[in-house]
Amino acid sequence: MLRSSTHPDWFAASRRDLAALLSDHLHCERKAAENALSLVRRYSGDQKLVDRLTRLAHEETSHLVQVSVLIADRGLVLRPDTPNNYARALLAEVRANEPERRVDALLVAALIEARSHERLTLLAQGFAAEGDESLAALYRALGDAEDRHAELYRELAGDDVRLDELACREAEIVGALPHACRIH
Amino acid sequence: MLRSSTHPDWFAASRRDLAALLSDHLHCERKAAENALSLVRRYSGDQKLVDRLTRLAHEETSHLVQVSVLIADRGLVLRPDTPNNYARALLAEVRANEPERRVDALLVAALIEARSHERLTLLAQGFAAEGDESLAALYRALGDAEDRHAELYRELAGDDVRLDELACREAEIVGALPHACRIH
Repeated sequence: MLRSSTHPDWFAASRRDLAALLSDHLHCERKAAENALSLVRRYSGDQKLVDRLTRLAHEETSHLVQVSVLIADRGLVLRPDTPNNYARALLAEVRANEPERRVDALLVAALIEARSHERLTLLAQGFAAEGDESLAALYRALGDAEDRHAELYRELAGDDVRLDELACREAEIVGALPHACRIH
Repeated sequence: MLRSSTHPDWFAASRRDLAALLSDHLHCERKAAENALSLVRRYSGDQKLVDRLTRLAHEETSHLVQVSVLIADRGLVLRPDTPNNYARALLAEVRANEPERRVDALLVAALIEARSHERLTLLAQGFAAEGDESLAALYRALGDAEDRHAELYRELAGDDVRLDELACREAEIVGALPHACRIH
């Protein structure tokens, strides 16, 4: 689904400050759950969407609990959320009127999940190389879930032509961002 | 925790339109999850609050899935959310500045959970009397969860004097509302 690959230096940059990285990850899981719930509110009449996204929100909140426990177990302190320039730039691509708004909102969610899958997989590999098997195992499991979520959003959107357009824009946006201690 | 009891006529009024009642209930569970997630965002520095409310959000999304499945199983169609005058009136009581804002937000959540517990318990009794054991069992289980959530929010707030003030206001607000096909 993605049109670009993250630079191999990204892992070293992102894990420099583990508390910042894990805090950003926790807030990403929170926002993923909130976004699914807001789509349930907006598209209540779409029974398939409601069924799938209520379950997705339940799974994202499970991840949220896991990351919260991880932060506490490592003796770290959760930091406040900071503005996410990546998601903001992508959301600015969502067309204003229905039915395009629904398609774009679902495809933007698909792309964020796909990029999260790529990044969490890089974290799993990087932590495994450092010998931190518990972080590696968590990130492998959560990364696999993001991949399923990306496919689910893509299927609900049902417009792979528009997906290609937005995927090109996503690659531009993510490529222009500095490597920071965060998922995106 | 509550300063008033719901009139016995409420059950008959609320279940007249089952699709409307279950739809309102689904949206209540969604908003309960969203509210917990927004408190996690706002009070990220409070580790106990984050731990408890991430788990609570996970449980609320499980209820959301259960109600969504129930609506589909009964061949009903989920309706859009409608403005909740009960919650709006209670939220208007939240003081604007910290640390009072945090206390009040937690206590308003406690009272909404306590009233939900009362109402879901009435639904469990009413549906049991009608012989609808599957609805009765669901509402017993969900009602018990709301009771635990009310106690959790009360404990996080830690101000039973202010709770008494807000509980009096809650009784006034709920007493002034008509009986409709909704939880509150």
